[in-house]
Amino acid sequence: MKETKLPVTTWIARKRDGGALDDQAIRALIGGAASGRIPDYQLAALLMAIVWRGLSPRELGTWLDAMVASGDRMRLGKIPGVKVDKHSTGGVGDKISICLAPLVAACGVSVPMMSGRSLGHTGGTLDKLESIPGFRTALTPRAFLGVLSRTGLVLAGQSDTLAPADRILYALRDATGTVESIPLIASSILSKKIAEGTDALVMDVKVGRGAFLPDRAQARVLARTLVELGRRAGLRVVALLTAMDQPIGQAIGNACELAEAIDVLRGGGPADTRALTVRLGAEMLILGKQARDLAAAERAIKGAIASGAGLEKLRACVRLQGGDVRVIDDPRRLPRARHQAVLTAKRTGFVTALDAGALGRAATLLGAGRARKEDHVDPGVGILLQAKEGDAVTRGAPLAVVQYTERPRFASVRAQIEDSFTIGPTRKRLRPMILERID
Amino acid sequence: MKETKLPVTTWIARKRDGGALDDQAIRALIGGAASGRIPDYQLAALLMAIVWRGLSPRELGTWLDAMVASGDRMRLGKIPGVKVDKHSTGGVGDKISICLAPLVAACGVSVPMMSGRSLGHTGGTLDKLESIPGFRTALTPRAFLGVLSRTGLVLAGQSDTLAPADRILYALRDATGTVESIPLIASSILSKKIAEGTDALVMDVKVGRGAFLPDRAQARVLARTLVELGRRAGLRVVALLTAMDQPIGQAIGNACELAEAIDVLRGGGPADTRALTVRLGAEMLILGKQARDLAAAERAIKGAIASGAGLEKLRACVRLQGGDVRVIDDPRRLPRARHQAVLTAKRTGFVTALDAGALGRAATLLGAGRARKEDHVDPGVGILLQAKEGDAVTRGAPLAVVQYTERPRFASVRAQIEDSFTIGPTRKRLRPMILERID
Repeated sequence: MKETKLPVTTWIARKRDGGALDDQAIRALIGGAASGRIPDYQLAALLMAIVWRGLSPRELGTWLDAMVASGDRMRLGKIPGVKVDKHSTGGVGDKISICLAPLVAACGVSVPMMSGRSLGHTGGTLDKLESIPGFRTALTPRAFLGVLSRTGLVLAGQSDTLAPADRILYALRDATGTVESIPLIASSILSKKIAEGTDALVMDVKVGRGAFLPDRAQARVLARTLVELGRRAGLRVVALLTAMDQPIGQAIGNACELAEAIDVLRGGGPADTRALTVRLGAEMLILGKQARDLAAAERAIKGAIASGAGLEKLRACVRLQGGDVRVIDDPRRLPRARHQAVLTAKRTGFVTALDAGALGRAATLLGAGRARKEDHVDPGVGILLQAKEGDAVTRGAPLAVVQYTERPRFASVRAQIEDSFTIGPTRKRLRPMILERID
Repeated sequence: MKETKLPVTTWIARKRDGGALDDQAIRALIGGAASGRIPDYQLAALLMAIVWRGLSPRELGTWLDAMVASGDRMRLGKIPGVKVDKHSTGGVGDKISICLAPLVAACGVSVPMMSGRSLGHTGGTLDKLESIPGFRTALTPRAFLGVLSRTGLVLAGQSDTLAPADRILYALRDATGTVESIPLIASSILSKKIAEGTDALVMDVKVGRGAFLPDRAQARVLARTLVELGRRAGLRVVALLTAMDQPIGQAIGNACELAEAIDVLRGGGPADTRALTVRLGAEMLILGKQARDLAAAERAIKGAIASGAGLEKLRACVRLQGGDVRVIDDPRRLPRARHQAVLTAKRTGFVTALDAGALGRAATLLGAGRARKEDHVDPGVGILLQAKEGDAVTRGAPLAVVQYTERPRFASVRAQIEDSFTIGPTRKRLRPMILERID
């Protein structure tokens, strides 16, 4: 009469009925997901029950520990100082990591950054970095440590050996409508960051039309969950809620966003891209104990822009990771789509809304992102915004430059890009980009 | 940009968020489940979302239609009169179908009965029938029709070609904690009954400790759902809520329950088994237009017992389905387990409770039922209750006779059987067996 199989159905039913899973059950479930011992259909039902019923802080802590324990864990103890990473929940035009990480490293804080690829309407830092010819993002742990110890900075992809349970569960969640769960999102993010070995993390939690969580209250719950869950797991987390109604900066795409990040490091770039970079960088410096307060930290980041120290850090990192450093000085060497079209305003007025979600989906359809994981990304396509919220436009003035490879794809998204601009008679008051800070 | 795959994830997300699925989506989902085109993990997540959010009457009607449309449908038009079946949500010691169906057929109503096997702590009519040596329950549609037209009665297993989507979804629900959903239960039951070709159905919805739905309010919702859903699909359903706190009758097992049903047809058997048979049979006669009111219908059923006409119907049916009819006259020919033990009362008093769920699980562990679908059923094992709720017992008097094959199995359930009897100092007032009628 001995029960040799795991009582998975009983565990699913317990969560379905609003009960709590004990630590042993959670470890067996995550371990079984990673090993393939528990079939997908049982995991899928469990995930939906978790979307429904949630996980208590104790359950979530164990869930996170088990996700981390499912794979390797980077040991960054030999790198001096507090290691600080940054992660965003996903924005449109969000190239901040690429200028941010070198600036923070230039100010003396080591940044062990592992990034993901685009999925859905939001871009992926990894795809943007890979527009640099030769740039390698798949690094062995040894290479990762080597680049980090020599430059204080490494820009890598997520390793398959870190938190493999997360990879399996994420793929399943993506196919089963179970992505939208605060505890599952929080544990997915932190499992990779803890496995990567960072000591502290600045979270950029996006809020608004173009964000994964449009609702501010929901975004706040996620931010608090990340901070609390990190605390339990020994990872210091500071979260900023930032606006994602319109895209960040001017460029939406891969090579064009990389070029914009380089512009910021050169002291240029759009004001909002710069401002967000400075603020997130300042938070990282404080976590990394290289600045006492926000004012001092922001001065330090601005100093690293002005001195060119940030640009030098990026150059060193690109060189060590096999990339063509000439693109740093001459972004025209980056891939660029063959065709270009200028979309213009049909009336005179003010841009009162600029739909980040619609623009992100349009960029994805042009080839800048992936509708499905297997899709190929075209580094040279993108959208360059010529007007943003609050700007005055006159009829016939350019709203966006679209860089595209395939004419039918452009034709299919042209109206969507045009419609993402709302032009009204009066100037709209902009809301601040930084909405809230949670730690 | 054309979408060739079904947007299953979108449908799951819609249900997850409490939205309604349109008819086309429901048909594609059920069709995809039956064909294997939609992977199990997506179906599992959808099923959990349905447990969470439910299905509206319109969605449920379409769901049921699609389940029926996934397979063949028996055509019973050549059989004269209103065909009436009976189904129970599953009780312990529930052998009613076996005496009920021949009595109803003897009163002139054709009963096309397809039954299921035991699962969990409740028994299955099919397993009980198969204790008759040679009795065939796997009938072709032609054989099913032949037996029904010759005797007005057929006792068969569910055909694989009827409502195959239900079989697939049920197996998945069983493994994913998604059985417990009123709309899924109702559509599963009715899909098989509609495919079987019956015109009307009496539902015995069990309520109490030993029932699948212990809570009366929940059982009532299921009963109402069955009646309403049946109405939409053209199947007349009458539901009785009946008590399932203690087992029905005396016998719990396969051959021993069959013997008890034969006893009832001979005018004997326990009072509660007889009473439930008469009442359910009467409801079937009214649905089958062979009686004007309950009193007349009950008289007719009692008459078919007294005349032996019910027993003759069972004999004819067993003969046509290849069974050894000698067991009808001499139930000692039925399989009987090698060993027997008598469990006795440890104190004097009254039986105030008799836990049907615990006794059902004990009988399953003895081998009378299945913990898993692949388990083998031992026809000869069982529990014969010697005292029931309300009975006075003296210390040392027999409470139950346990028939068993394997000593370790008996040892493992002995205490559970003893503990299922609660003996107190005062006689408890019994609640009526028929709690409510819903039509």
